[in-house]
This record gives sequence, C-alpha cells and structure tokens, in this order.
Amino acid sequence: MIKAGIIGATGYAGAELVRLLTGHKEVDVCWLGSRSYIDKKYASVYGNMFQIVEGTCFDDNLEALVNEADVVFTATPQGFLASLLKEEYLQKAKFIDLSADYRLKDVRVYEAWYHMEHKSPQFLKEAVYGLCEVNREQIKRARLIANPGCYTTCSILTAYPLVKEGLIDASTLIIDAKSGTSGAGRGAKAANLFCEVNENMKAYGVTTHRHTPEIEEQLGYAAGSEIKISFTPHLAPMNRGILVTEYASLVRNADGSLPSAETLRRAYEKYYADEPFIRLLDDGTCPETKWVETSNYTDIGFRIDERTGRVVMMGALDNLVKGAAGQAVQNMNLLFGRKETEGLALAPVFP
Amino acid sequence: MIKAGIIGATGYAGAELVRLLTGHKEVDVCWLGSRSYIDKKYASVYGNMFQIVEGTCFDDNLEALVNEADVVFTATPQGFLASLLKEEYLQKAKFIDLSADYRLKDVRVYEAWYHMEHKSPQFLKEAVYGLCEVNREQIKRARLIANPGCYTTCSILTAYPLVKEGLIDASTLIIDAKSGTSGAGRGAKAANLFCEVNENMKAYGVTTHRHTPEIEEQLGYAAGSEIKISFTPHLAPMNRGILVTEYASLVRNADGSLPSAETLRRAYEKYYADEPFIRLLDDGTCPETKWVETSNYTDIGFRIDERTGRVVMMGALDNLVKGAAGQAVQNMNLLFGRKETEGLALAPVFP
Amino acid sequence: MIKAGIIGATGYAGAELVRLLTGHKEVDVCWLGSRSYIDKKYASVYGNMFQIVEGTCFDDNLEALVNEADVVFTATPQGFLASLLKEEYLQKAKFIDLSADYRLKDVRVYEAWYHMEHKSPQFLKEAVYGLCEVNREQIKRARLIANPGCYTTCSILTAYPLVKEGLIDASTLIIDAKSGTSGAGRGAKAANLFCEVNENMKAYGVTTHRHTPEIEEQLGYAAGSEIKISFTPHLAPMNRGILVTEYASLVRNADGSLPSAETLRRAYEKYYADEPFIRLLDDGTCPETKWVETSNYTDIGFRIDERTGRVVMMGALDNLVKGAAGQAVQNMNLLFGRKETEGLALAPVFP
Amino acid sequence: MIKAGIIGATGYAGAELVRLLTGHKEVDVCWLGSRSYIDKKYASVYGNMFQIVEGTCFDDNLEALVNEADVVFTATPQGFLASLLKEEYLQKAKFIDLSADYRLKDVRVYEAWYHMEHKSPQFLKEAVYGLCEVNREQIKRARLIANPGCYTTCSILTAYPLVKEGLIDASTLIIDAKSGTSGAGRGAKAANLFCEVNENMKAYGVTTHRHTPEIEEQLGYAAGSEIKISFTPHLAPMNRGILVTEYASLVRNADGSLPSAETLRRAYEKYYADEPFIRLLDDGTCPETKWVETSNYTDIGFRIDERTGRVVMMGALDNLVKGAAGQAVQNMNLLFGRKETEGLALAPVFP
Repeated sequence: MIKAGIIGATGYAGAELVRLLTGHKEVDVCWLGSRSYIDKKYASVYGNMFQIVEGTCFDDNLEALVNEADVVFTATPQGFLASLLKEEYLQKAKFIDLSADYRLKDVRVYEAWYHMEHKSPQFLKEAVYGLCEVNREQIKRARLIANPGCYTTCSILTAYPLVKEGLIDASTLIIDAKSGTSGAGRGAKAANLFCEVNENMKAYGVTTHRHTPEIEEQLGYAAGSEIKISFTPHLAPMNRGILVTEYASLVRNADGSLPSAETLRRAYEKYYADEPFIRLLDDGTCPETKWVETSNYTDIGFRIDERTGRVVMMGALDNLVKGAAGQAVQNMNLLFGRKETEGLALAPVFP
Repeated sequence: MIKAGIIGATGYAGAELVRLLTGHKEVDVCWLGSRSYIDKKYASVYGNMFQIVEGTCFDDNLEALVNEADVVFTATPQGFLASLLKEEYLQKAKFIDLSADYRLKDVRVYEAWYHMEHKSPQFLKEAVYGLCEVNREQIKRARLIANPGCYTTCSILTAYPLVKEGLIDASTLIIDAKSGTSGAGRGAKAANLFCEVNENMKAYGVTTHRHTPEIEEQLGYAAGSEIKISFTPHLAPMNRGILVTEYASLVRNADGSLPSAETLRRAYEKYYADEPFIRLLDDGTCPETKWVETSNYTDIGFRIDERTGRVVMMGALDNLVKGAAGQAVQNMNLLFGRKETEGLALAPVFP
Repeated sequence: MIKAGIIGATGYAGAELVRLLTGHKEVDVCWLGSRSYIDKKYASVYGNMFQIVEGTCFDDNLEALVNEADVVFTATPQGFLASLLKEEYLQKAKFIDLSADYRLKDVRVYEAWYHMEHKSPQFLKEAVYGLCEVNREQIKRARLIANPGCYTTCSILTAYPLVKEGLIDASTLIIDAKSGTSGAGRGAKAANLFCEVNENMKAYGVTTHRHTPEIEEQLGYAAGSEIKISFTPHLAPMNRGILVTEYASLVRNADGSLPSAETLRRAYEKYYADEPFIRLLDDGTCPETKWVETSNYTDIGFRIDERTGRVVMMGALDNLVKGAAGQAVQNMNLLFGRKETEGLALAPVFP
Repeated sequence: MIKAGIIGATGYAGAELVRLLTGHKEVDVCWLGSRSYIDKKYASVYGNMFQIVEGTCFDDNLEALVNEADVVFTATPQGFLASLLKEEYLQKAKFIDLSADYRLKDVRVYEAWYHMEHKSPQFLKEAVYGLCEVNREQIKRARLIANPGCYTTCSILTAYPLVKEGLIDASTLIIDAKSGTSGAGRGAKAANLFCEVNENMKAYGVTTHRHTPEIEEQLGYAAGSEIKISFTPHLAPMNRGILVTEYASLVRNADGSLPSAETLRRAYEKYYADEPFIRLLDDGTCPETKWVETSNYTDIGFRIDERTGRVVMMGALDNLVKGAAGQAVQNMNLLFGRKETEGLALAPVFP
C-alpha cells in the first residue's frame, strides 16, 4: 500500500483527491491536512464522506508527514510548498504539488506573473511537469511533480499534436476557456456566491491570467520556439468542467491548400491513439463538459474552417479530476509503478 | 459472469444502469434495448459512454432476450412489461422491473391510479417489492422484482422504523418531496426544457400522484393496518436528487410525554444499523441531496418539535441510483447471491 | 416627490429597493447607506445600476438621514433599528423596517427566538405589521412599519382566508417552504457559495426557524386564538422565489362532509378579489415561482384531498419583491397616500 | 395608440414582446398569433401573464392582421414571412421581422447558409437592417425592418467602432460567443431539456453558424470591404444572456506602436457616447450577462494585450431584449416617431 498524505484536504481539489484515493485499491490515506479544520472530523466538513472517511483533520506539518507518507499531495495556495520544501523531504517522500510553484522553469516568469518571490527555485530544474501524456517517462523517475492546473491541462492537450507536428501557426493561437465555478475554490468570497454566479457569464483575468505563461512554455517546447498566445478564462454557472475553444491559422501545404481533416486527425492519433484518458471524438463532434464529468477523460474535437484557413480545436475535461486530483493520482500511479489507470477507471456521470 | 439485458437503455434510469453495470465486475451487459435508437451506437446517444460502451442499440425483443440473459432489467413505461411478461420468460431469466407494473398487490388500486388495465395480474402475487432493506430475504428467492421508484424508496425508508415501532401516528403522515428533473425522464416535453425548469419550483400531481398508494401499501404493512397519507411531489431545478420532508404526530408515552430523540434514534438503528446504504445522520444534521449524489446511499435525519408534538423526518437519495438503477443492481446482487454492495461502493461526488 | 433614504442599500433586499425606487415616479432616493462600501460608487458594487444610479454609498447616520428623508427604509440585520430608533426620529420621518425588530408584539417571544435583547420595546405597540392585504388601514396611519419577511408573507397570505373563515383547523397547519438563495443574503459564507447550493436541496432551521412565531402571531389573530404550527424552510438552487406548500385538516360540515372547492374559493375571493397583487389561480393550477419572478404578485392555488380530509394550499412570490422590497414600496405608497401599485406594476419576467 | 400584432407570440421572443408591449404606454396589442395555441388563453401558456394579458391566441392570418394593425411583429421561423409578404401588406402596416429573412442583402448568401429558397427576394433591397445604433435614420423611414438576432447584435456592436475607425484588422476577427438557452427557443427537443443543458457547456454550429454572414456583411460595411470572420457560438447553462469575447489584431501606428486604450475608448465614445442603450464600461471592467439581464442594454468593455498586439473586446446583452424583442420595440419607436426609449427604460434585474 502506498501511504499518502494530503495537505489542503478540505479545498475542492483536496476533497476530490480524498474521494479518488478512497476508491484506489493500493493507497492508504494517512494524513488529512487542513489548517482551517484542525481536529474536526473530515466528514463534518464534507458530508458526502460520512461513514466513508472516519478521520479528523490534521495540521500542515510537513516535517512529520514525510516520515509517515510515501507520497505527499499539496493542494495548497501558491507559494506554500515553495516556502517549505527541503531536500530532506524529497529524500523521504515523493511530492505531487497541485499549485503552480514548480510549473514554470524560469523563476523570473513565475515572479512576474505571480507577484511573489519564489522561495525554493533550486528545485525548479528537477521538478517534472506532470502532464502524463507528454512527460510520462520523466514522471516515472521524478521526486517532485508539478501537477498542471485545469486550464493548462485542457489548453495544452487540445493543441499539442497540431503544434508539435507544425500543422498550425502557434503564434496565432487564441484560447477561449470556460470554467465551472469549483475552479475558483471554496473560499468564502461574495463574487462566488450562488446568486452572483448563477445565470451569469463573464470573462476575468483578461490578458493577465497566470496560466498563460504555463501554456506558452509547454506549447513552446512542442513548437520548438518561444510563443505568445491569447488566453481568456470565463466563469460559467456550473460546478465542474472546463471547455476550451482554440483558434489557430493552419499552415498551408506547399501548393497553398489547407491540410485536410484526415491529416489533422492523424496528428492527434499519433500522440493520443493509445492514451487511456484522451478521447478523440468522431469527426464533427464537439466536446461537452457533461460528457466527461467526474471522470479523468479529456475529450477533443476539431473543425477546419475553409473560409478563414483556421482550425477550431475544442477540448473538455473535469477541472477537479483530469484538471487536478485525477491527474495527480495518474502521476502517483506512474511514480510508484502502478497501473496508470488504477483508481481512475471511472465512467463519466450523466446527467 | 451474470449476463444482463436492459430494455429501455436510453432513458435516464436505463443509462444509469449501463453506467453502474459497466463498473460491476461480475456482469456482462449483453443487450442494450432501445426502441427509439435501434442500430445506433449507444455512445452516439450518451456521449459520456464514448469508448466505454461499444455496442449498438437493439429492439425490445423479450422473446430473444430471455434466451441470452440471466437477468432482464426493464426501465420502461408503465404497462410495458405487464403486457408482455409470460411464465416462460420467468423460467428462463430473472426480471427486475423499474416500472410500477408489479409494485401494488391489489390490481384495482393499480388500475385506479394508473388509469390503465393491468395485462398480467397473475404475477402480482409472486412479484417481490424490491426494497432491499425491508424485503431482503424474499428478494433473494424471487424471480420477479418490482423495483421501487425514487419518491417511494426515499419516502418509505425515511419513515419506516418509526411507523414499524409505533412511534408515530401513521394517519398524520404528510410527505413533502422535492425531486431533481431527471426523474421526469428524457422525453422531449416543453415543460422539462431548461428554461422552464431553471429558476423555478412548483408542486405537481397534488393529491393525485401515482406513488401515493405504493407508499401507503408499504408503510401500511409496517403499521399493521391500512393508512392514508398526503404526498406532494415538487420539481426542483437540479438534475439529480430526492429530498423528502415528512411530518407526523408522535405517539405520546403513557405519562403524556413525547418519546425522546434517543428513543427515535434507537428505532432507526434497530432497522438500519447494519445497512450498507443507509446513513443515519448525527443528531440535528439535515440531509442534503448533494451529499448522496451519484451514490447508492439514503441519508436520514430527524428533529422533534416539542411545541407541536410532531417529528420532522428527512431523507435524501439520488433518484437515479438508490431511487432506480442502483437499487436495481442491489436487487440483482441479492438475486444472484453476490455481495450486496458489489458495483455500488461509490463515494458521493461533491461538488 | 417623496425623499427616501435606504440603510443597507447593498444587501440584496436593499438593492432591490434601489431598483424599484429608481422606477417609481414620485420618489427621489436621497441616501444610499452601506457601512461596507462607504464612499464607493454604488454602481461599482451593483454593475447592473451602471449609468442608472450615479451616487456613492453613505454611512448609516440615522441622525442626519431623518433630516433629509421623508421615509427611511432599513434593510439591516436584526437588532439594528431597535438599537437606534428614537421618538425624535419618528417625528421627523416615517420608518419602514425590513428586519424583524418590530414584527412580534410580545418582546419575550422576540427575545426567545432571536436570542438578543430588544433595545426599544416601547415602539412595539405602535409598530404596524406591514402586510398590506391584511392591515391596509392601520398602515395608512402608521409612523413605523414592520415590513414582513419573505417566508411569512407567503405563508400567511396563502392560508389567511381559510383560517379567518374557520374552514381549516389551524392547529393542524404544516408549512413546508422552499426558498431561492437570495433570501440568505449577500454575506460571504461558504455555505452559500455557488458550488455548495447548486444541484442541492436541504432543509434548515428545522423546528427552530425565527419566522415561525411571526406566522403564528398573525394567523393567530385570524383564527381568534393562539396557534402553533410546523414551519420548515428549505434552500433551493435558484436565485429568487418562495414556494410554500401548506397542509391542514379541513373543518367538516355539520353533516360530516368536507367543504367544497367552491366554498374555499369563495373564502379566498372574499379577501383577495380586489387585491392588486394577489392572483388566485384557476382551479387545479399550482403556482410556480417563475410565474411571479421580479413582480410583486403572490400567486395562490389549492387542492382538496378527499382521501385524507386535508387541503393543500400553495403560494408563490418573489422573495425580494413581495417578500421584501416590493412590499416595502407598497407600504410606502400607503403611508404617503399614493396609488398602492405605483412603481410596482411590473409584469413577471419569463423565462 | 399604436396597434400592434404579433405572429409567433408564444415563442420566447414573442412572449418577451408581449411583456414589453404590455408595459409600453402607447401600444395596444391587438393580435396574439400562435399557430400552436389557437383559441387558448394566452395566460394558460404563459402563467406569468395571468390577469395581465386576457386575450386568447389567434391564427397567423396576415391578410386580416394588416387591416387591424399599424405594425406587425413576426417572431417566426426562417422563411415564414418571406413566403407570405406582399407589397399590399407593406402598404397597410409596417413590418418588423425577428427572423433572418431580410437580414442579408444577397439572396445567394441567404440560400447558401439557410439551405432554403427565398420566396420574396424583391423586398431584400428595401428592408432595413434594424440595428438602431448603426442605421437609425434609415429605420425611421422604413416599411420593413429586419430585426437583428441576438448573436449578431452583440457581436457587431462590440466591434463596430474599432472596425469603422480602422483600429483593428478585421480579417483577424475571431468571435467566441456564449448564449443562454432561451436563444434555442421553446421547441420541445431533447437537447434542450434541463438535464442536458444544466451543468454543461458546449460549442455548436462550429464554422457553419448562420449568423456568420450577417456579422460579416454588417462589419464589412463598417470596414469598407468584404471580410471573413470566425464565429463560434456556445450553449451556456442559463436562461438569458449573450456574452461575446472578440479577438483581433490591432493596427499598429506608423511608428510600430500599438494604439492606446485611450484611442480605443475615444473610438467607442465617438459612436456610442449618446446611445441610450449602450454602456461603455470603465477601463478594465469586463461585462457580465447578469448586469444587463431583462434590460435593453449592451455593455461593452475591452482590454489591450501588449504581448500579442491584440485587443480583446467583450460585449453582453440580454438575448430576448436587446437581442430580440427589446430591439424590435426600439425599432417600432423609431418607425412611429416615438421616444426611442419608451417602454424600454428598464433597470436590469439583479440577482
């Protein structure tokens, strides 16, 4: 059994980790860390876990935790793990960080977008960006995983094969993303009250959202050069789900014609045909967030627009599963040599 | 492996059966019956099942199906199974009917509330009312299960121990129920359009809802006498979930005092302490539909009102799971001697 | 022009007052009081009012306000007005209090249910309970109006004629109420976050909700004797709307027969036939909260249950309009001799 | 009084017309046309209008209607008015058509995108595209108004000043639109059921949506040349509201610098400063659909992205008001020389 500790177990991502690990046959959750609810029964915070999780919440004592756990999940605010992580901890336990602390290789980019000093840049080089479909082999050998966020996972996976194969001009990439409200976390803010979100759509963080450089870095590796993209997140009146709609100009063939749908499909299949958690939809089918809800799938579809020479790529995932906790479990499975789908073979719930 | 056939596989309850059986280790679904979608790929109707269910939809040929299947689930409209069932079929396969055809023992009551002739009343006596917590032993020996509906399961389980123990006056029982919209089915009716249901609450079927006699019959057995109740269903703007709020006058002790909360709790525990799918909540905790969503649990709480001498009992379940498909799987497990929780050990999803 | 000041203008009820008074031809809003947003532009808090309301938020200075305003609306927490009100203020301006401070005549009942000391019980006798349909004449002559809340307005109006006419046994009255989430206010609490409320139904305040004694007092006047009722509020996943479902045993005629639907209808018509804001629905029609949304209407319907001898009464209103701000405007119109419907002739919005 | 007839009065746009005209002081609705509900009381179809609209539904007899009405609103499916309109009718009454029949000047474009023959192309030249902010003077003199749809109104108004002033490269324009579900109409389709839409986001009509050429034609006039754009509509789980997020490359100044936010703001102000129904938001403020709900406003904001050289323009409106019925009333006011805001001075409802 893998002994797992969770710091931040009462946020939405942390709670989803608890739910998924509870159904994972080879994991024993030994630490439910939650600063806000120390000594309270976990099930009194999350009533769905009544009679399923019997434990109480602990504090965030990493020092103690690394002695008990084989793997530590940190579902914590930006800067938390960066301010505490030590080499000694990494020698004792593997770390899967759900925050952005180790996602960007360049500490200056981190500090520019997050407006905070990075307290342990020495681990940036070692940290592996935990997008399993792209970095599977490095993940298996890692000690520290930077688990990608919901927007970035969906944005990158949806465009990756076409960027990698040079079928689109990455400098024209525009990503319009729509997110369910659980992505905003469980903090008590007026802006996230039911009455403010319900029956409402809005963009936010326009031109300044922190996930932008993460997408640019990863897709830049695929493109083989630095890229700049437009990324606009929107808040949608639903609990779960990310939908991205991505626009890019196709790179024309030598004869001036556009690449065919078949060519694009082959590119997607080249990278994803054997991926257990990516479903390339039938031609013309648009992904819907409801079709992936509560599962670890990313659904991807695309449509060529002959009139404008662009392709519209679309991707959908559950922000708390493939966009957070599910991907973290997938990374854990890789880290510990388990079957990658263990604990994640969940059919999406509908309706 | 149990070979299972489903008639009505593209309704919401049928689709939930497909989802649950897909995750059940000892079941092989051999027949996806759907009159409306014959020869269409199942996953083209329910996109969530893309790459999970590969089959196409078949017709409703019971004659053929009973030769292939060990168990037939009928998630069909009232009157469907009643008009087709034959002794020969029951000799070949076990039947779990999710409609109301065999739930009421008295055919006259059926015909009065459902306004249709019952075409096979000869099976009414044999049919077992598939409320596992109440009729477990009969279920194990049955050939034909009348799987209770969502309102009735929640209504009966919430009051059963107090009625059975004579702690409430069953003639005062008033059940006010609130249901998610998936209970209304997938038929294309204007009244169930998003814009008509969203931001709306209404009662319907007031004093005439067909689930009333079913609750009366079952709680009448518990009371040891015929009872008449008030039952009012309401449509709530959510996909899943039933919440019942039940009111009844407590039967006073000989000295005129009311029974204590401890007494009521002991009554609930007497019947439910070992039930895997009933969670008796801590004192004062009110159930919430979200805490049971996608799971097979029924959560129950109660509160005594000293001022009026009444008890308010509350129950919550997921109408598509414990209120339909989950209970059907639970019945199947009992019928075939499997572990009762097999395929149903699902932690509720939140949020 | 009536000069109106609002204390608590940035809560949901206060904001609805601002919206309604903005459309009222004879009112000039001279004071937007909001402790939390002093000196901030009102439209920066409520973006819907951009370019409609140009003012900034003021503090809660009653002393100054009564010199400027003809009428003061207090949309404030329990105890606020009770702790500040003076005879001098009442001589300068009329007060319409949307809190519960002056709704209960018996200060001991107030203190028992609200768990706080009442700081100005000397005004309790003078205060008029501002349910226009019941107390219209006293309202016209009042200085201090205790504006009823959403649950109570809906609960009382729905049962009042049948209680008043002795057609139901008031001691059997059970009120099951469902409320939209704006009734919980704009305070930043985790329990009211979108993800916690959406796709969820729950009861709360079971047997202990503070609106209970208010309903009992008012319906007790109608009954001519003290009554005790059961009142259970529920939180529904929608922004606006209250639906009450009320159960009571009918008082049988001398020959043991039940009163007819026609008799009940006549009772409703006796009190409501000329009421501009009560719509008695056609026989058998159940009210829906969506049919009254954004309007000042209360829709009422009922159904007799011959089997149990009970009547099921149903009422629906918009909790922020007839349940708060609309009723306050209606009271203001009465206080100042304006046409009662002025500023309130709003067709409900659908969908 | 203007006598108004409505064909298609029981669809969502038609019903909104009924609501708005009911509150319009100078209009008398003389004809509620609805094929599906002939002879039924209008209020039995739309319960919100109980005791407000007393009439019954008529058939679609244009021949009779033009003799009674000064203005005919057709809120009907594509092709309806085109197949019936005659010169004689236009001599008797003014027409405001809410369908797309007369929106495109080039009949070949209409037939290519709508896949139907246009039955009265002779009126295309005369018809005025009823976007009041752009074509106000022609509207005043028109007999036949092609009332723009919800997506197009929002898409065009949001980009118009920047296109017109040559500040953006119109060939780079990408419009990502999110719509509430009332835009899909009241037809009983499974895809629009509550359970299918709720908790779901999806794109549809990708690269092929019929509103594309309408946007291209109108913005092409502003650009002074033909343009091709990308337009992607999405279905959002809310009743009302359109949000558009529009991306375009800014045209750089001679010195290679980007135009400033101040320059863009001046362009918007040049066209919209005096517009009663356009609100240019403060710098950095993103529009929210909830801030315009139930009103005739379009809210517009923008943000320059220095990194990519693009501008992100955002617009929000209520699809049933400014996107349909409100704009139709605004057109009617212009046609009949009434105050343009008459009947439309509605503060948005929140929450």
